[in-house]
Amino acid sequence: MTLAGYLEKRIGIVGGGQLGKMMIQEAKKMGIHVTILDPVPNCPAHSIADAHIMADFKDEAGLRELAEQSDVLTYEFEHIGVEILQALEEEGHPIYPTPKSLAVIQNKFLQKEALKNAGLLVPDFLGVENQEQLRGIGGILGYPFLLKACTGGYDGKGNALIQRPEDLEEGYRQLGSGKIPLMAEAFVAFEKEISVLACRGLSGEIVLYPVAENFHQDNILIETRVPADLSPSVSEKALQMAYKVMEVFEGVGMFCVEMFATHEGEVVINEVAPRPHNSGHYSIEGCVTSQFEQHIRAILGLPLGETTLVRPTVMRNLLGEEGCIGKARVAGVHEALGIPGVKLHVYGKEETKPKRKMGHITVTAQSMEAAAQLAKRAAEQVKILSIEEGTQ
Amino acid sequence: MTLAGYLEKRIGIVGGGQLGKMMIQEAKKMGIHVTILDPVPNCPAHSIADAHIMADFKDEAGLRELAEQSDVLTYEFEHIGVEILQALEEEGHPIYPTPKSLAVIQNKFLQKEALKNAGLLVPDFLGVENQEQLRGIGGILGYPFLLKACTGGYDGKGNALIQRPEDLEEGYRQLGSGKIPLMAEAFVAFEKEISVLACRGLSGEIVLYPVAENFHQDNILIETRVPADLSPSVSEKALQMAYKVMEVFEGVGMFCVEMFATHEGEVVINEVAPRPHNSGHYSIEGCVTSQFEQHIRAILGLPLGETTLVRPTVMRNLLGEEGCIGKARVAGVHEALGIPGVKLHVYGKEETKPKRKMGHITVTAQSMEAAAQLAKRAAEQVKILSIEEGTQ
Repeated sequence: MTLAGYLEKRIGIVGGGQLGKMMIQEAKKMGIHVTILDPVPNCPAHSIADAHIMADFKDEAGLRELAEQSDVLTYEFEHIGVEILQALEEEGHPIYPTPKSLAVIQNKFLQKEALKNAGLLVPDFLGVENQEQLRGIGGILGYPFLLKACTGGYDGKGNALIQRPEDLEEGYRQLGSGKIPLMAEAFVAFEKEISVLACRGLSGEIVLYPVAENFHQDNILIETRVPADLSPSVSEKALQMAYKVMEVFEGVGMFCVEMFATHEGEVVINEVAPRPHNSGHYSIEGCVTSQFEQHIRAILGLPLGETTLVRPTVMRNLLGEEGCIGKARVAGVHEALGIPGVKLHVYGKEETKPKRKMGHITVTAQSMEAAAQLAKRAAEQVKILSIEEGTQ
Repeated sequence: MTLAGYLEKRIGIVGGGQLGKMMIQEAKKMGIHVTILDPVPNCPAHSIADAHIMADFKDEAGLRELAEQSDVLTYEFEHIGVEILQALEEEGHPIYPTPKSLAVIQNKFLQKEALKNAGLLVPDFLGVENQEQLRGIGGILGYPFLLKACTGGYDGKGNALIQRPEDLEEGYRQLGSGKIPLMAEAFVAFEKEISVLACRGLSGEIVLYPVAENFHQDNILIETRVPADLSPSVSEKALQMAYKVMEVFEGVGMFCVEMFATHEGEVVINEVAPRPHNSGHYSIEGCVTSQFEQHIRAILGLPLGETTLVRPTVMRNLLGEEGCIGKARVAGVHEALGIPGVKLHVYGKEETKPKRKMGHITVTAQSMEAAAQLAKRAAEQVKILSIEEGTQ
């Protein structure tokens, strides 16, 4: 390992979904050995990983095996048992981002508290202690507000919008009736949803990507446009906040800072993800160094790469169509690839279901207007259906 | 297969070297299943291929197995037994580029004849019938001239430069003393070596990439710069010739047309390769659609992608260092990746030897001057050594 330098450092990734797959795609370009841990035999990363430990994400023996087969560990999602990672780290296995950062970030309440304590603008929030106290929260935060599970949520799962007092009971029940710690957060009437990719190297070096503008539907990301259509001052604020976030969490590796830009020109942090992020997929084609290569560089202690945006870029998610469940098929590929600048990513998940993230399309063009239009046309063509559906 | 359209079409590649690996990298982005045939267990494409048939490139049973496991066959180098491919094609297995084009192109004499007959400018050439007739060729073509094996050569292997009559005997001996058919070709006193990537789709659609400028050392490609530093008229000539080449060979898939630009402003074809080419690696980072994605699109019958060059791009090959033989190690990676815009490709060949192609570096920048300078700096850092060497 020392002889050959970083290229003989083997990477272990907890999770073999699309983020793991895209990390491996970058790692393999540089000839790096990658092992994944994922319970699904045919998960997206399976066919390009050097080795695959089939085990649950909470399986201590599996995680230990992964650590032993790797020189550095990372993960593609934040909902992992942090205690096991801490134990492995103490035994001498490097893990990035560090379990210490992960422990704070994976708990939304602790995350928000850390951000607030660092002087960063976040929505008003408070912990939910019991149902009694919850009933009084509307009086403090106002309606609507968000009830959130402190751990485990993604793509809007684990969140409930409380529009009025009558929604409280149902929201509380949906989120586990107090079995998982809950928090309440003021609803931000935002003008735009934006995000900034940031990466911190082992040496402390921090790089930022340009501000991205995100569009969601039913809490799921639909489209990302870069550069975001923002005033220079709002853009500058967002970049500065992302930089500070990286200092607060002492993150090593790629992070994504999701923020709201308000009508008043303020920027409020919504959430921090300690990993490459869906809203950063645009960087594969859009930037000199993709978020996945950047993550690999960071966790191996290599210098970070140039983040320049080369052309205006639009990313559109390909979600499982409504009404289609079962073995997936991709329709409209021929039509979509006939549109200039279109790049197709199909994650290779065997099964589709409504709104499941099955792939994405990226379009780069000379102008944002052109990129957005071409991406829209392409996304209208490609549909993720199920085989049963197609045979009817 | 018909249900899911092209995405369930499985590709079979003869050869699992770096070209095969880079084809697979693009195919896997789109979720396409790829099987390789290669005798080397740990060849560069091995770890990212879905399946690997370990067999010699001339092994009929192996090639038949590959065909049966795939919906379309392609290859990463042209020195394959064309008869086996023809038989498989007749049995109904689609193979692109077609064995018919391959049969002509893989024989340098037939290739030159086809180009000449189509009115394309090639160096004067003639077949070598025997040693007696060879002695008279200097009188026809003048000295120096090139003696070439009609089949099987690459990176200057299979060529001998005949500077004067006294070199004839040694050259003839080097190239097999007449066991392989030979040809003689006038030496072109070129100003620049250039190449154009071209791709033809199943529908006959042809796309061209910008003209690239190549620099060789000991007949091995060292550096490619795109765009080439040429007058618009020479550049236009080169593009028109590449277009015509695609019509002549009715090629399906990526081709590379290597040419000489003379001091007189003429363009002369040197050689045609029926596959992605080393001088086209720049397209991975430099162009909207890389030569590898383009090849995948073409052989699957998909529309061809945009070939726009996004930024000036320089590619430098990483060759095995002199004096280093054995298990490879890559030195200087940290230093090279600290230089802006540098992308590192390490093919993952286990063994290095002097001048073996082990990887490449690509740099994109705002100007060609900057890209060339950064690439030079990076290439000075990265060295392909052997482990034995490093421990001394």
